[in-house]
Amino acid sequence: MHEVYTYPNSQSQFLRAAKVIPSGVYGHLGPAEGCFIPIEAYPLFGDRAQGSYIWDIDGHRFIDYMCAYGPNILGYNDPDVDEAARKQREKGDCMTSPSTVMIDFAELLVDTVASADWAFFAKNGNDVTSMAVMAARAYTHRKKIVFFKGYYHGVSPWTQKIDYPGIIEEDVMHNIYIPWNDTAALERAFAENRGEIAAVIGQPYMHGNFMDNQLPETGFWQKVRKLCTDNSTVLIVDDVRAGFRLDLKGSDHYFGFEADLICFCKALANGYNVSALCGKEFLKNTISSLSYTGSYWLSAVPFAAGIACIEKMKRIDSPKILLDKGNRLRTELMKAAVEYGFDLRVTGMPSLFYLRLADDDSLMLHQRWIAECVRRGVFFTSHHNHFINASLTDRDIDETVEIAKEAFSEVRNQM
Amino acid sequence: MHEVYTYPNSQSQFLRAAKVIPSGVYGHLGPAEGCFIPIEAYPLFGDRAQGSYIWDIDGHRFIDYMCAYGPNILGYNDPDVDEAARKQREKGDCMTSPSTVMIDFAELLVDTVASADWAFFAKNGNDVTSMAVMAARAYTHRKKIVFFKGYYHGVSPWTQKIDYPGIIEEDVMHNIYIPWNDTAALERAFAENRGEIAAVIGQPYMHGNFMDNQLPETGFWQKVRKLCTDNSTVLIVDDVRAGFRLDLKGSDHYFGFEADLICFCKALANGYNVSALCGKEFLKNTISSLSYTGSYWLSAVPFAAGIACIEKMKRIDSPKILLDKGNRLRTELMKAAVEYGFDLRVTGMPSLFYLRLADDDSLMLHQRWIAECVRRGVFFTSHHNHFINASLTDRDIDETVEIAKEAFSEVRNQM
Repeated sequence: MHEVYTYPNSQSQFLRAAKVIPSGVYGHLGPAEGCFIPIEAYPLFGDRAQGSYIWDIDGHRFIDYMCAYGPNILGYNDPDVDEAARKQREKGDCMTSPSTVMIDFAELLVDTVASADWAFFAKNGNDVTSMAVMAARAYTHRKKIVFFKGYYHGVSPWTQKIDYPGIIEEDVMHNIYIPWNDTAALERAFAENRGEIAAVIGQPYMHGNFMDNQLPETGFWQKVRKLCTDNSTVLIVDDVRAGFRLDLKGSDHYFGFEADLICFCKALANGYNVSALCGKEFLKNTISSLSYTGSYWLSAVPFAAGIACIEKMKRIDSPKILLDKGNRLRTELMKAAVEYGFDLRVTGMPSLFYLRLADDDSLMLHQRWIAECVRRGVFFTSHHNHFINASLTDRDIDETVEIAKEAFSEVRNQM
Repeated sequence: MHEVYTYPNSQSQFLRAAKVIPSGVYGHLGPAEGCFIPIEAYPLFGDRAQGSYIWDIDGHRFIDYMCAYGPNILGYNDPDVDEAARKQREKGDCMTSPSTVMIDFAELLVDTVASADWAFFAKNGNDVTSMAVMAARAYTHRKKIVFFKGYYHGVSPWTQKIDYPGIIEEDVMHNIYIPWNDTAALERAFAENRGEIAAVIGQPYMHGNFMDNQLPETGFWQKVRKLCTDNSTVLIVDDVRAGFRLDLKGSDHYFGFEADLICFCKALANGYNVSALCGKEFLKNTISSLSYTGSYWLSAVPFAAGIACIEKMKRIDSPKILLDKGNRLRTELMKAAVEYGFDLRVTGMPSLFYLRLADDDSLMLHQRWIAECVRRGVFFTSHHNHFINASLTDRDIDETVEIAKEAFSEVRNQM
């Protein structure tokens, strides 16, 4: 039996944080809108990380299936990536002129990503999804944008909802929302807005929160691609979350189509802070025409880290590793659930799996099971997809399944 | 006489970059919209940096007065900042839970910045100016935003111009533009839009491009502050560029008023990638209510760097150092100009000085003088304010003035 963790240090530090930081810990790392792990089970503050593990400030080790919500793809503190970054840092990082590692990184992306004729770098996923939409509007001289319901494309006003604080109707009045996998709805949207749709933006599959994740139905993306081409609409793939976990050539390539613009961020440099927009030649001049820059966008260290990260992902064929590990974990977790009489749904791609205990529509039973896993050292989360990293070992998976069983047993006993 | 540089490596690398990167080098670091240094004088790519110097890929050294457009405030590769960052990196950077250095950094900002009751961290200056505007709209339930003509607040659509590519009228239809230092115009704006103005956003003084920089007239900010208070409008200070170069307590404090929200980025961590929004207690819950996060926003290394940077700025009283160095440089440059029969205007704060040769309205003479300085190893730029860093030596200033004189002489000979 595994130790059941308590978090006195995290909880006292959270009170300290809440005095000087709105929400204490905000965003996707925070308890309010992020992980939905019950607070009594939540390691709010991390002390250190290595490989597939994080340690919290109460001294507990966790097998980490969130991977910093995506950036950790090779394992925390990967020696090859860190060494490349360290060498670049000795020369310079954020300088008055960019380093030529920027060119090296762009060339590597163009060589690697199927739909990339060029690359443009920024800091946030949100920077590049926003730039993609601006580019589509600039190129087409149209205003409307089609979204798939359940989407997440960042935090800029154009991608938020009308009832969110700080958003005004003008931010979202040209947004059209259609159901995922519904090509008939997309056809209707094009028919009803002829010559007005600048872009269709979508994640490669529906990995939204609070919902079983859905892969594209056969032919879905090919139909979307054809409708965009036929209507001279720009097709934007937001690969910020899934990018490089399915296919190093891009998740569009994995699903058998080509985007016009594709957005990368999280797994691009194993946690070093960089994002990238890649795209087709016909949009390159439009990108050049936009007024778009940032204080740190040409910092050299993240570029050096990104080169080392992509080269290593190629060398070890990381998508296959992630798929194999994810498949094994999925199979064994589902088997364990059956053993304890539970109906565990594991959806989405195995490298980005989403979990839901389907025995209870309120999701409370699910949250309790997740909490019992976390408190025993497996960092799952309640209503967000998970992430596999390449340093996860078979022994980690064995231990994860053991802990999942203890958690099932605990939840069963409480019922 | 100093060597006159040529740039064969930069020029060939630029051709390589242009194949895979829109514009080759984009944004404020690029030749197109950034520095306006004539291309034959422009070191497009940096190799390394140390202290007050950058070296380009043709092996030339420059005394750098752009400081990566602001981030370099202590000197490149500052040993104290780099050591703090290195130590944190060994533990962890971008993890599934934030490190408590986030709290330490927030507490330090609250202790340091006069108008800060709390701090919220992101990656770009643009992230925090955008968040400030969203917070003002959420708090006031109003839409209109007042800008001072000549402003720059980042690249999001709300802050761009209607005729910029990719911008639609709905992005900017609630923007009101008034002249800098014109309190009568601001009063009229409030009268004509009673109960409708969510925020006034301004840089602490007018340090726009292509214009002599203008300090606030006596009583200007106090009048703006009063109008905002009287109209329940949020006063946002964009201290991204000037922050920590005038006053460690904030540039609002330097000019004798308090902002409701204040935005920091460039000088916050000596080039490590982090930005911060700070503000008053009454807006803290509004900030908490916004949906606003990013993949790397809680990365620990930039926080550790930021703490070391602010502590060192306090220890050495960096604003005084920058002011003294800037004053000396300004005085000697103006004296040198007179010696060669030129009318050199040096405007703005000495730590962020703006240069203009006023002998020629076309600005071509000015650009030629800048080019002659750059080609001899002084990285000035044509139509953007400059930045002083604390590692700049008296000897650097002496050499700068010598080179400026050679450049004046060269321009005089060409006339």
